[in-house]
Amino acid sequence: MNKIDVTMEKLVNLCKARGFVYPGSDIYGGLANSWDYGPLGVELKKNIVDAWWKRFVTSRGDMVGIDAALVMNPKVWEASGHVATFTDPLVECKTCHERYRADQIDLNAACQKCGNKGTFTDPAAFNMMLKTWLGPKEDASAVAYFRPETAQAMFVDFPHVLQSSRKRVPFGIAQVGKAFRNEITPGNFIFRTREFNLMEFEYFIHPSDWEKYFEYWLGEMKAWLTFLGVADDKLVFHEIEDGERAHYSKRTVDIEYHYPFGLKELYGLAYRTDFDLKLHMESSGKDLRYTDPKTNEKYLPHVIEPAFGVDRSVLVTLLEAYCEEEAPTSEEGESATRVVLKLPKSLAPYKVAVLPLSKKDELSSVALKLADDLRTTFTTDYDETQSIGKRYRRQDEIGTPYCVTVDFETLTDNAVTIRDRDTMEQVRIPLTELKAWFAEKLK
Amino acid sequence: MNKIDVTMEKLVNLCKARGFVYPGSDIYGGLANSWDYGPLGVELKKNIVDAWWKRFVTSRGDMVGIDAALVMNPKVWEASGHVATFTDPLVECKTCHERYRADQIDLNAACQKCGNKGTFTDPAAFNMMLKTWLGPKEDASAVAYFRPETAQAMFVDFPHVLQSSRKRVPFGIAQVGKAFRNEITPGNFIFRTREFNLMEFEYFIHPSDWEKYFEYWLGEMKAWLTFLGVADDKLVFHEIEDGERAHYSKRTVDIEYHYPFGLKELYGLAYRTDFDLKLHMESSGKDLRYTDPKTNEKYLPHVIEPAFGVDRSVLVTLLEAYCEEEAPTSEEGESATRVVLKLPKSLAPYKVAVLPLSKKDELSSVALKLADDLRTTFTTDYDETQSIGKRYRRQDEIGTPYCVTVDFETLTDNAVTIRDRDTMEQVRIPLTELKAWFAEKLK
Repeated sequence: MNKIDVTMEKLVNLCKARGFVYPGSDIYGGLANSWDYGPLGVELKKNIVDAWWKRFVTSRGDMVGIDAALVMNPKVWEASGHVATFTDPLVECKTCHERYRADQIDLNAACQKCGNKGTFTDPAAFNMMLKTWLGPKEDASAVAYFRPETAQAMFVDFPHVLQSSRKRVPFGIAQVGKAFRNEITPGNFIFRTREFNLMEFEYFIHPSDWEKYFEYWLGEMKAWLTFLGVADDKLVFHEIEDGERAHYSKRTVDIEYHYPFGLKELYGLAYRTDFDLKLHMESSGKDLRYTDPKTNEKYLPHVIEPAFGVDRSVLVTLLEAYCEEEAPTSEEGESATRVVLKLPKSLAPYKVAVLPLSKKDELSSVALKLADDLRTTFTTDYDETQSIGKRYRRQDEIGTPYCVTVDFETLTDNAVTIRDRDTMEQVRIPLTELKAWFAEKLK
Repeated sequence: MNKIDVTMEKLVNLCKARGFVYPGSDIYGGLANSWDYGPLGVELKKNIVDAWWKRFVTSRGDMVGIDAALVMNPKVWEASGHVATFTDPLVECKTCHERYRADQIDLNAACQKCGNKGTFTDPAAFNMMLKTWLGPKEDASAVAYFRPETAQAMFVDFPHVLQSSRKRVPFGIAQVGKAFRNEITPGNFIFRTREFNLMEFEYFIHPSDWEKYFEYWLGEMKAWLTFLGVADDKLVFHEIEDGERAHYSKRTVDIEYHYPFGLKELYGLAYRTDFDLKLHMESSGKDLRYTDPKTNEKYLPHVIEPAFGVDRSVLVTLLEAYCEEEAPTSEEGESATRVVLKLPKSLAPYKVAVLPLSKKDELSSVALKLADDLRTTFTTDYDETQSIGKRYRRQDEIGTPYCVTVDFETLTDNAVTIRDRDTMEQVRIPLTELKAWFAEKLK
């Protein structure tokens, strides 16, 4: 079988046609690279987020979650530096007032909009937080921002979490949720959007332990990527050098991925020191220090921050799963080339598809009943349109691990044929054993 | 046992102390009735949302989910009428410019802020959508709104979902996500906030079936409330009369609940007719009609909309679960009054708490190992501080169904004592049987 490289065009088309991801507000011409998750995308995303939450939060004794409001007190963003410095440099055409990112255009060239030349202003800082007003007045006192990152909530809520959870350092606070950046140039499908989903945690440690935990979490992030099905050779662990790191970090590793559009960031791991807690302690006047119950040492914990983009997780999971294969034998008259999403079974939107061999009522009624029964335990699709070969191919395209075919023999032998997505092999299983068979295969 | 009525003060205090819900941005003095879910709240909320999704989406053959962008093309809100009419009437003090909701103050009284009398402007419409700008310019062409409801995404994405999912009417599109309203008077804890979570679906039907499906979904909503543990006598099914309903609805039932602060809305069920699809078809110029594959009838489906507030679901679940009891016998020297959250077991943040009888190392090491093992299957807390009686009471307060005590006998008989949250009865179970015992009790 030849693996053919996936292109973004192929993936985007499959996502739209099959219901993973649609352009946002599409009937109105869309909206600036916004995207909506469709029926399959919402299940894939949920499976990824739920697996992450179980792996990194509920199955650990040293991690708890929070879910904070998206709009926080503006003082949070003043303290963190986002109001002053979370900016892109923009220039403006003096003729038509179109704005451009200063680092992305040739200032001596003509304006791409009006065509006038050499008429750009000096670069000015443009804050990338999405601004709004709370309350009845649209004035400076009512300005608020949608959070540009999730991390600050873990620092601001740190004293409440510490007190109520009675956790002891080392421990982490995790959050999954939206963040917002007014990107001037969003793009590449769900790679860079103005609203995006993050999964991340702040892991609070004694400062002397930072190297140990940095290495530990780097290993855990690698293991997670293996779980998503990402091949090692698609990843680059980019050690960010002195002078290149964010101002708060003493060590940062960007985990980069070879997307079809180039090598770009996927996840990040940063040692943020006590930078954030210290700022919030100074700005709020609240004591955010931790007292070690054994040594009585009182100190500000340091922080290791593993950050995982949800939408990028979905994107690389799809990219890695996408295969075009020359199938060894053509199935039921279908073309010998098939597109198949070889998703990890636990992440597949549907685990099972039930397909009556024909639309005859006696097969449909048995198949519908079977689908309803399976659906209480495994997410299950049902499809009775077109040829069985076409339906196999459709389930391959959405990554369903198993197709169950109900045929005329089923009416007498009470058994069904199960086809495996990856091997295309078929086995005959009695209906009474079906749930146990899937439970074993999908566990 | 006497059931004592819960007050909001008691509930809010418990939520903050135990980590269900904290005031948002609290170290900075909070922010206008915003709230953050803490470690236990995030699990309770997730359990409610996951149960809802399984019940109403994945375990049904006639429902699919989506997750749309929070910011949609402004044309959506022009078409839906939100730009023109989603407003509160406000008056402004002519002296100090403080604004008030016109329907909530006495226009002949003094301004509550500056004390001047009779100086209010005429009421003016104040749009309740949260406004922002996308892109580099803050001008009219860049204005966008955070969605004030989730429903419009289901209508706008209707043709994509129809085509990619191949569902046939009747079927529903479900969504769980945030919505935003610039409420002038938010309040009552998580009852009314500026950003809130909704679970809802639009169920698309043939217009002739609307009465049947309205009754059906009303019954399903009642069954869901029973699942949450809500007593029938706390609910009022308020049939909204002609002239009182939203402009798009032909029948609406508000499901109201007797909160400690009065009888107020909890959920809503509305028959929206084809109002929304028709508007979007006209505004977008796209044909949104459905063709029945059997009759070839081409029509705009009508819609039944069951809407469930997530935060209100959390609130009523907590209110219904909260009990203060005079315990029949005091446990281990604790006071005879106990506070217990009698949450449905499937919704409890922690299913199990492992408690070593004393802090002695030989007990702690066995107990920690046991907690780590249980945690892979059941959410598990571990606590070795203070007396066993105090620790039982603490687990009661957070609704943990089972406490497992590791004592000195455990070291020789390889068994543990399990205490039941509700009955306080204790049983001795061999360690080898523990997981199976919990699996049975918690299934």
